[in-house]
Amino acid sequence: MRVVITGVAGVGKSTVLDIVKNKTSYEIINFGTLMFEMAKAVDLVKDRDELRRLPVDTQINLQKKASAAIGKMENVVVDTHMTIKTPNGYMPGLPEWVLRELKVSAFYLIEADPELIQKRRNSDPSRKRDEDTVADIIEHQQINRSFAAAYSIYTAATIKFIENVEGKPDIAAQNIVKRLMQ
Amino acid sequence: MRVVITGVAGVGKSTVLDIVKNKTSYEIINFGTLMFEMAKAVDLVKDRDELRRLPVDTQINLQKKASAAIGKMENVVVDTHMTIKTPNGYMPGLPEWVLRELKVSAFYLIEADPELIQKRRNSDPSRKRDEDTVADIIEHQQINRSFAAAYSIYTAATIKFIENVEGKPDIAAQNIVKRLMQ
Amino acid sequence: MRVVITGVAGVGKSTVLDIVKNKTSYEIINFGTLMFEMAKAVDLVKDRDELRRLPVDTQINLQKKASAAIGKMENVVVDTHMTIKTPNGYMPGLPEWVLRELKVSAFYLIEADPELIQKRRNSDPSRKRDEDTVADIIEHQQINRSFAAAYSIYTAATIKFIENVEGKPDIAAQNIVKRLMQ
Repeated sequence: MRVVITGVAGVGKSTVLDIVKNKTSYEIINFGTLMFEMAKAVDLVKDRDELRRLPVDTQINLQKKASAAIGKMENVVVDTHMTIKTPNGYMPGLPEWVLRELKVSAFYLIEADPELIQKRRNSDPSRKRDEDTVADIIEHQQINRSFAAAYSIYTAATIKFIENVEGKPDIAAQNIVKRLMQ
Repeated sequence: MRVVITGVAGVGKSTVLDIVKNKTSYEIINFGTLMFEMAKAVDLVKDRDELRRLPVDTQINLQKKASAAIGKMENVVVDTHMTIKTPNGYMPGLPEWVLRELKVSAFYLIEADPELIQKRRNSDPSRKRDEDTVADIIEHQQINRSFAAAYSIYTAATIKFIENVEGKPDIAAQNIVKRLMQ
Repeated sequence: MRVVITGVAGVGKSTVLDIVKNKTSYEIINFGTLMFEMAKAVDLVKDRDELRRLPVDTQINLQKKASAAIGKMENVVVDTHMTIKTPNGYMPGLPEWVLRELKVSAFYLIEADPELIQKRRNSDPSRKRDEDTVADIIEHQQINRSFAAAYSIYTAATIKFIENVEGKPDIAAQNIVKRLMQ
């Protein structure tokens, strides 16, 4: 089974993924990292920033290659984004050509209180000051739900919204672990 | 014309469907019941609970068979779900392979006040105590709208949200009847 | 690049489009007008009202023809609707057969404060009195976002919500112009 776990920056996704990794035999694959490694292996790029500067067709081919590879694996958790927020708007993390290859059984949207997300983002020293207001974060989490609905139609995947309560990532992770152990 | 009518449990969909049935020449087909009858006819299952325990591929084949059959009928109202709420999340009631066969002209979402829905669910003796909070019901009705949007793209079907006001199922039904009589 | 700009009636879309037209080399094509001209050219209709009374299959063929034509153009802004609000519900402005031909890179949803939209609609002498309540306008703008999400999956198009603040269409337009000049 292949499941997808997403969450906006600051939602606490990494911690949840670590718990899922420790409690199950599922492999966690970061979609962007896999694309980068595939591009690097054929000398298309040297560092990850170059990835998004590749011609669109090349990026699409890499997405197809990465999702075809994952689509052949069993017991994989794909760590990716419902949408990528860019200056030009929200871009789908899983366009049709990715969905057709990935054959997802379940989408998990890790969500959190928008004010908490903002606080976490601003206290993260590795991030440059985030410009998103609380209203922006609400909008982003909301549109991600619409995307999840549209994605799920391709494979009749379930979509589950999981609130990651501050200090309780175990509870959020348990929701996912339970399903993966079925 | 084939139209789809959906609504979360407790919304009063059955009453609305009965009125539609009485006032038009449309046949009302329950999608799940049709799948069950098709499965039973070939000795795949004996009772309806067994349906969801069939292998996923078998379920998909049954869905395709049922929707292909409906897709050939004229003047049918399909009684089904935008999403099925499961412990693993929302599952699309009309995945791609169903939509491609059904060729829907119109989706109707019967909706109601979430507190009213909760009250109806809790006073229904045939249901075991429902755990959904009012917030859960709001979420369910909301995500169903997103699903409807995504479904409609396949056939340019209209999507209409109809409020089923307490004690006035005739008004809700009339919205649908009017269209079916056009 | 082909981008799509939409907005509900009264949102101020025309003014924004005029600015985009003046500041870029992009051609603005109204999808409905193109369909009408194509239908008129082959004597299918004489005036625009006849368009929607054509048989559904004929309308679909016209939509395909129009979108195939646009899909071959470079640097086009398509002026159309996320959804068309009809008495039977919301109808998708960009069904699958349109999306597959158009190959959209970006969707822009011009939005505005619903009370402002209502005020503008009611003070427009060319419109007959609009029946939409503020709640209706909120619903329409909200469902349009869900449609945008579902549309974007076909081509990994970005979707951007742009608030058209009263008296400041330049700011709204600038968001789009910036992208078109990249």
